[in-house]
Amino acid sequence: MKSKKLQSQVLYGADYNPEQWPIEVIERDVVLMKEAGINAVTLNVFGWGMIEPVENCYDFNKLDYVFDLLEHNGIGVVLATPTAAPPSWMFQKDPTMLKVNENGQRVEHWSRQAYCPNHSLYRENIRNMARVLAERYGKRSNLLLWHINNECILHCYCDCCAAEFRTWLRNKYETFERLNDSWQLQQWSLAKTDWEQIRPPIGGMTHTSASLDYQRFMSDSNMQGFLAEKEEIIRITPDIPITTNFYSIDFLGQIHHQWAPHLDVISWDSYPPHRDYAVWAAFQHDYFRSLKQAPFLLMEQASSNVNWKPYNPAKRPGMMSLQSYQAVARGAEAIMYFQFRQSRGGVEKYHSSLVSHGTESDNRVFREISKLGHELEKLDKVLQTRIHARVAVLFDITLMWLVNWNKTSQDIDYRSTVTAFYRPLYEANIAVDIVHPLEDLSGYDVIVAPMLYMFEEGVPDNLRSYVEQGGKLVMSYNSGMVNGCDVVEYGGFLRPIDDVFGIIVEEADALEPNMSNRIEWRGKSHIDSSKSSTSSTRSEIYRTDKWGEVVRLNGAEAIAVYLEDYYAGQPAVTRNGYGQGEAYYVSAHPEDSFIRELLLDVCSTAEVEPLCPKAPKGVEITIREDEGQRFMFVLNHHAAPIEIDVGWLEGAAWKDMLQQTSISGKVTIDAYSTLILEEEQG
Amino acid sequence: MKSKKLQSQVLYGADYNPEQWPIEVIERDVVLMKEAGINAVTLNVFGWGMIEPVENCYDFNKLDYVFDLLEHNGIGVVLATPTAAPPSWMFQKDPTMLKVNENGQRVEHWSRQAYCPNHSLYRENIRNMARVLAERYGKRSNLLLWHINNECILHCYCDCCAAEFRTWLRNKYETFERLNDSWQLQQWSLAKTDWEQIRPPIGGMTHTSASLDYQRFMSDSNMQGFLAEKEEIIRITPDIPITTNFYSIDFLGQIHHQWAPHLDVISWDSYPPHRDYAVWAAFQHDYFRSLKQAPFLLMEQASSNVNWKPYNPAKRPGMMSLQSYQAVARGAEAIMYFQFRQSRGGVEKYHSSLVSHGTESDNRVFREISKLGHELEKLDKVLQTRIHARVAVLFDITLMWLVNWNKTSQDIDYRSTVTAFYRPLYEANIAVDIVHPLEDLSGYDVIVAPMLYMFEEGVPDNLRSYVEQGGKLVMSYNSGMVNGCDVVEYGGFLRPIDDVFGIIVEEADALEPNMSNRIEWRGKSHIDSSKSSTSSTRSEIYRTDKWGEVVRLNGAEAIAVYLEDYYAGQPAVTRNGYGQGEAYYVSAHPEDSFIRELLLDVCSTAEVEPLCPKAPKGVEITIREDEGQRFMFVLNHHAAPIEIDVGWLEGAAWKDMLQQTSISGKVTIDAYSTLILEEEQG
Amino acid sequence: MKSKKLQSQVLYGADYNPEQWPIEVIERDVVLMKEAGINAVTLNVFGWGMIEPVENCYDFNKLDYVFDLLEHNGIGVVLATPTAAPPSWMFQKDPTMLKVNENGQRVEHWSRQAYCPNHSLYRENIRNMARVLAERYGKRSNLLLWHINNECILHCYCDCCAAEFRTWLRNKYETFERLNDSWQLQQWSLAKTDWEQIRPPIGGMTHTSASLDYQRFMSDSNMQGFLAEKEEIIRITPDIPITTNFYSIDFLGQIHHQWAPHLDVISWDSYPPHRDYAVWAAFQHDYFRSLKQAPFLLMEQASSNVNWKPYNPAKRPGMMSLQSYQAVARGAEAIMYFQFRQSRGGVEKYHSSLVSHGTESDNRVFREISKLGHELEKLDKVLQTRIHARVAVLFDITLMWLVNWNKTSQDIDYRSTVTAFYRPLYEANIAVDIVHPLEDLSGYDVIVAPMLYMFEEGVPDNLRSYVEQGGKLVMSYNSGMVNGCDVVEYGGFLRPIDDVFGIIVEEADALEPNMSNRIEWRGKSHIDSSKSSTSSTRSEIYRTDKWGEVVRLNGAEAIAVYLEDYYAGQPAVTRNGYGQGEAYYVSAHPEDSFIRELLLDVCSTAEVEPLCPKAPKGVEITIREDEGQRFMFVLNHHAAPIEIDVGWLEGAAWKDMLQQTSISGKVTIDAYSTLILEEEQG
Repeated sequence: MKSKKLQSQVLYGADYNPEQWPIEVIERDVVLMKEAGINAVTLNVFGWGMIEPVENCYDFNKLDYVFDLLEHNGIGVVLATPTAAPPSWMFQKDPTMLKVNENGQRVEHWSRQAYCPNHSLYRENIRNMARVLAERYGKRSNLLLWHINNECILHCYCDCCAAEFRTWLRNKYETFERLNDSWQLQQWSLAKTDWEQIRPPIGGMTHTSASLDYQRFMSDSNMQGFLAEKEEIIRITPDIPITTNFYSIDFLGQIHHQWAPHLDVISWDSYPPHRDYAVWAAFQHDYFRSLKQAPFLLMEQASSNVNWKPYNPAKRPGMMSLQSYQAVARGAEAIMYFQFRQSRGGVEKYHSSLVSHGTESDNRVFREISKLGHELEKLDKVLQTRIHARVAVLFDITLMWLVNWNKTSQDIDYRSTVTAFYRPLYEANIAVDIVHPLEDLSGYDVIVAPMLYMFEEGVPDNLRSYVEQGGKLVMSYNSGMVNGCDVVEYGGFLRPIDDVFGIIVEEADALEPNMSNRIEWRGKSHIDSSKSSTSSTRSEIYRTDKWGEVVRLNGAEAIAVYLEDYYAGQPAVTRNGYGQGEAYYVSAHPEDSFIRELLLDVCSTAEVEPLCPKAPKGVEITIREDEGQRFMFVLNHHAAPIEIDVGWLEGAAWKDMLQQTSISGKVTIDAYSTLILEEEQG
Repeated sequence: MKSKKLQSQVLYGADYNPEQWPIEVIERDVVLMKEAGINAVTLNVFGWGMIEPVENCYDFNKLDYVFDLLEHNGIGVVLATPTAAPPSWMFQKDPTMLKVNENGQRVEHWSRQAYCPNHSLYRENIRNMARVLAERYGKRSNLLLWHINNECILHCYCDCCAAEFRTWLRNKYETFERLNDSWQLQQWSLAKTDWEQIRPPIGGMTHTSASLDYQRFMSDSNMQGFLAEKEEIIRITPDIPITTNFYSIDFLGQIHHQWAPHLDVISWDSYPPHRDYAVWAAFQHDYFRSLKQAPFLLMEQASSNVNWKPYNPAKRPGMMSLQSYQAVARGAEAIMYFQFRQSRGGVEKYHSSLVSHGTESDNRVFREISKLGHELEKLDKVLQTRIHARVAVLFDITLMWLVNWNKTSQDIDYRSTVTAFYRPLYEANIAVDIVHPLEDLSGYDVIVAPMLYMFEEGVPDNLRSYVEQGGKLVMSYNSGMVNGCDVVEYGGFLRPIDDVFGIIVEEADALEPNMSNRIEWRGKSHIDSSKSSTSSTRSEIYRTDKWGEVVRLNGAEAIAVYLEDYYAGQPAVTRNGYGQGEAYYVSAHPEDSFIRELLLDVCSTAEVEPLCPKAPKGVEITIREDEGQRFMFVLNHHAAPIEIDVGWLEGAAWKDMLQQTSISGKVTIDAYSTLILEEEQG
Repeated sequence: MKSKKLQSQVLYGADYNPEQWPIEVIERDVVLMKEAGINAVTLNVFGWGMIEPVENCYDFNKLDYVFDLLEHNGIGVVLATPTAAPPSWMFQKDPTMLKVNENGQRVEHWSRQAYCPNHSLYRENIRNMARVLAERYGKRSNLLLWHINNECILHCYCDCCAAEFRTWLRNKYETFERLNDSWQLQQWSLAKTDWEQIRPPIGGMTHTSASLDYQRFMSDSNMQGFLAEKEEIIRITPDIPITTNFYSIDFLGQIHHQWAPHLDVISWDSYPPHRDYAVWAAFQHDYFRSLKQAPFLLMEQASSNVNWKPYNPAKRPGMMSLQSYQAVARGAEAIMYFQFRQSRGGVEKYHSSLVSHGTESDNRVFREISKLGHELEKLDKVLQTRIHARVAVLFDITLMWLVNWNKTSQDIDYRSTVTAFYRPLYEANIAVDIVHPLEDLSGYDVIVAPMLYMFEEGVPDNLRSYVEQGGKLVMSYNSGMVNGCDVVEYGGFLRPIDDVFGIIVEEADALEPNMSNRIEWRGKSHIDSSKSSTSSTRSEIYRTDKWGEVVRLNGAEAIAVYLEDYYAGQPAVTRNGYGQGEAYYVSAHPEDSFIRELLLDVCSTAEVEPLCPKAPKGVEITIREDEGQRFMFVLNHHAAPIEIDVGWLEGAAWKDMLQQTSISGKVTIDAYSTLILEEEQG
């Protein structure tokens, strides 16, 4: 990372939007920031209307004032370009800058991100705004980081995007003959004979290959805006690092692994569900950390409830701190909130904040925030330490949509399948990276690839050489169906690497909700089950539903077989030795306990074992480490205190970092609380 | 009321649309009207195409004929302006007169109310039509009442409306700086710097403040049409009263309390659900009666089933009469149907009528209609008597939408919350007015304000002075969140009057469906429970769900507390003495039995007691009264006969008005039947 | 039929789309066709882009090559005009050729059938293409059949269609006065005073009469395209028969009985559900066979799963063959698949085919296909034999929509009501025709008319004279409500022929889901129940729900009465002697067992008896016959083998056609298998 400023402390702060507040409120707020232990504030995320209320007329009075005030109070600034919210005059100047939604309708300007990301007027103006900001604030001593745009996941289907899409496609395919062939447009006489015949896929998904490339084009369109701003900024402030805050993987609009090289540090916004929040957040922390194999910033979270979910309960006492420590435990080096003070109007006015409408700071939420702020000050040593993962789960965000467009069962879902395979590793406290299938896999002992529906160019070779060189690969059903254009290669299922798995998949069977099957283990001798901690609790027969495949062995052995229906007795799960490694294939959708046994067994053969296996369920444990330094995070996700025995932990001797005491024997961790340990040297 | 004609009899009649029928059918129909006891007919509701088939070419032959025929038969006319259904030539003349729906799409002319209410061509033509009708029919001896337009709840989002909306906003806010501030448009750089930047909120709710004002603007747009017509009419027929038939509160498009002063008499259209119809209709009768604190007209109901609900059962024998008497019991002085003869085509052809397609009048429905018609003739004495309510429930129709746009829980619903607080009062036969929170409240002993989410300007002062002067106010959770622009005031929840309640609300917690809490009574000594008729059946602990709030006492006492979750032990329901009165706050969503106990206890402390508490459940009882006169309506909503004891009734001696007999001892009321009593003098 | 070629063998084949495949794949495919026993291939269904890639520039190289190859291999060709998929250049030439959907939005060209069927550019080009194809391939020796367009069910709402619709209406109604009257447009001032005022019903169903005629107009628009192509073709190849493949009755876009006279042979595409497929497919086979009272072609089916249903299980082993034999058993003389080789891209890439992506022909599906192909070669004798049905079920495809637009209960559904009345006949193996109510009914002994909501002109007379002349007619509730314009005739329910039923229907009662009634038999003496095979298992009381009607007898007798609610004791089912025949009316929606008893009893009085009543449930039996020849199909729909006794069968002696052995005694039919018997002569 470019800046040392970022590395000297765990950042703790929030978005602050001075355009919403009069000076007297701002002054009160800075006092409260100090009280809460805040050391960084994200400024100007949507402030364009304040600083350029009329074209080319700037008013920096308030922003200057806030910058000064923060500087005087020793609070750093994450400075945003306000390009997620162009002001009204720009849309008035050219109403075609308003985006067109997927039904072909131009939106009105009543919300943020109402613009077309490819519009030339927009592009000109964001370059200008970025430059003006960099020139004005680039030398500020408390400028920590640039924050470009905000959750930049726009989609637009206007004529301007249509023209850019044609250019994008020409760059990718060169000729429309190649495009026709790549997308199989001969089918249904869709072949194009002139680039002008290509229009956005308005009206929802209509052709999977076109829609897939349109999504990629949208990510690139958003990224081009980011890069345009970055270009202006780095010319002026080459030493200030740059980020943009990614949104959750539930939204397609940014193909993160393509953006990541352009960011100096990854940041993301975490709004977990109330129930089962832990695995949801853990997965995404692991994903965003893995993007650059480096610590990341939690750029936004809510202090308590949000406003936009179907139901928005308050975070129970302790829960917000616990979620913050979970982020740190998995690689975060900033804990930031949206937003410092609760907005008075608009659709977000009931999104919780540090300072709330009613009691401002005189409430349990603010007290918890302040306590956390002051605790985080004790964690500087953790900065720049790493999570060392020997296991990776493959994840391709484009499949969040592509699988849906192609699914032959309502109940097949990429997200939940990935979670089903991630969950047992998470619960066993095995460190996991979440990586794109084109990344370098050579450092991992075990790779899990749930429903890797698409094999983009390079993926089969990457997987083959990974196994060849000794890796263990577990892949699930509905994988390897298509190439990078969503077109099936001759040979079908898995074909470019079906020899790696030693199987031939003959049929896929998408079950109706009232249908199911059962499977049981066979010939598991290859898995050294004596090592498995779960072996004593094994049931014999497992339910599968939603999906089944008819698999023929072609060198592999069946380690589990179906018990019912017309493929009874045929392989359900297979294992194949290939090169120095092994490839497993799971052709059904089994219940969780089966997946857990399988994955822990495979890990065990690679000598990857659960961390602190004696710790009770619901206790999350991670290690961050560096040369000579180890930190252990023990998180109690129960609504009740839990007792742990230090003897269960790895390592020799540990010190409680918050209490600054050595620990030994049995220790109680409060409900929704965290124990942070530093390994004592020697 | 201007006209004496209306006050001489209970109006009994139906819409009649001569444009649908040949002369021979019309002649048959008038015979049937007489048979049914009909004394008033609503004419011309959608008849524009008949009387002005081509621009400026009028054909009044049939309408004149019908007017004559009715006059000769002694039947009065409620004359409608047909402005809810402009004819095809007008849309052809200027297709931009077709309205644009909320998705931005212009409709085609295949239904009524297809017009833009702000279009100049429409406005010119309705003025002209109103004048022409008044000139032609204003002197008719049997003209009882003007009926302008029909269920006038249009919404349009066209450019013409956009321009009018800007004018409306300029009138309200004067400068766009004030608009920006009022709506908090600095947020997300939505601030307007030119009025032309303002467009309708197409695409659904996008900004709550803009959408709220757009709904108000739509009500005003509809009302401007009404007023334009009224202006033409009263110039010509100053002595004929004017109404327009309101639609159910389930539809926003008319903010009734703003329209009410412009109507001489309130009328509304009642289409209750098959199940639980009684409380549904009672609430709305009370609401529409309260608008002018005067009797109202039931302008439309169905003789049996309608056609447009998901399921449309026939009204069981007696049910239609019972629903009619319920209207009279709660203030109606007209019982009118839509429509006299069942239409042959279009979407309403299976809407029941007085004369049906098949057997015309030879069926049980017509027989019941005739019986009712002749019974109503005996109720002239009831005319112009009043319901005297000492309790009011506050209701603001704009919250039917505004709460939805802002709700942080799927399960929070303004309508059902209001019903939950109205139902126990209804079931106890306590007379209730339903009033807007800006109305004069000084006459009420108890005010119930369920989920009064918005405190428009004037509301806090109105409530404060009501309590100060001795009133008892019960308010529920999710109240007082925003000002009249849907913007939160500094201080948050209830703040302008939280001192009246003596509490501070710290957090709101929108529970997921699987979450709940429990509450129990504490310190109810202030409520003289010895007076409560329900005290013997009290349970100790009550379930709450959907919502909870963390409340701090600031002078109030907790009369019920939470038993679970992190706010266990904290106040759930509070009471505070303020000035001469008392203010109660219910921070949770409790089960019905709790609400009943609370409200009846509060009423009891104000010496408002259930009417005839010994009457069995499902028997609705009301009193209409005037100087020296009292009438009691006893309605049996059971599908079986029920016996009542005259001794349970109030007053000394009663006479059955329909039978013209004195009653005493035990009386049986048939299934779905009504006993109407006149108090015998002396 | 014109061509003898079609009659010499049971056609067995599939769609083949050479534009998707390189030459080497095509050559491999023809080898596989031979292996599978294929004797016919449907070519060129979507191949326009290949053969006319640029306007007026043709490239027939590949199509010629495939034609040659097939000819050399003795495989016939069903030659399609590719007019369901115009190429991109045509849409580019005039973008208004893109259709406009029912929301008024013009589609983009990302799918087939993107065109406006009324566009002049489209019409010119399809005529040209048809002529070019006929000239080029009309003399080919292996050309069996023309296949025009594909599942031609387009809907468009563009300005071009608007203009054509006006012309269509002028042809039908002559004057707009007659149109206004026919549609009852006086109501709501919708009457038109200029043809230009008429626009398509954009925005969903808005006026039932207009929407009904628009649907008819759409069927005609599609048919005009078909007829234009046909005109070109028959001029050149008068001896080659012509078809177009109909889609399932679940889609409105073709009013089949109007198209049927223009086809030389009926063909349709069958994609049954996984569960309860047998009655679904049987009904449609009967329907499409009845259109011309002649054998038909099964033009498309899937070899296993499709891709577009919510869940797409594989067809279990045997199921595909069984479904194929079911088609033959009910009149099919071709078994064709979509498609021979699985597409590599687009939305249909997971639709099963004969040759699959992965294992191509090396799998159980292909093996089953091959087995079936070679078995079908043994069934030539069955060609041109008939099903002799003495019972007909009336079916009007326009009611699939019209009933929905007019239904007063969510739960009323034309499709499922028709199935409820068809199912007991199907299960009793009684041969049934499915005919339009305007067809000649004189040949049937029993007519069942479930929910015949609309009596088009001619229908009442047709039904009356059918009963008069001795027919037995069973009609259900919600019948005879409207005339052919969806307008109620004076008199209402059934009125034009209520004297035939001897009843007057007074009320219809659409029940809520929690409501029901019960009925029981009365006075069934007229039905000779001693003949009924089901009499021993009768219950006494039957549940009804969804619907009830209040019926008065006017000459009829009640054979079942209601037991509950306000119409308890009144007629539920009636019988009336009229002329030489009898008319039954079912006013309620009874449970299945009641319908079965009623229909089998009525059949029994007409001496129509179940076929092989001793055969177990789930065994479908049909007879195809001709002078002197009888073939019996016995289909086992169970997932397990079943034993049948030859003694149960009709006729004297039977031979197994596939095994070429005589059968006697007990015979086992495998799971999902078929026994095909030829009656031995003498």
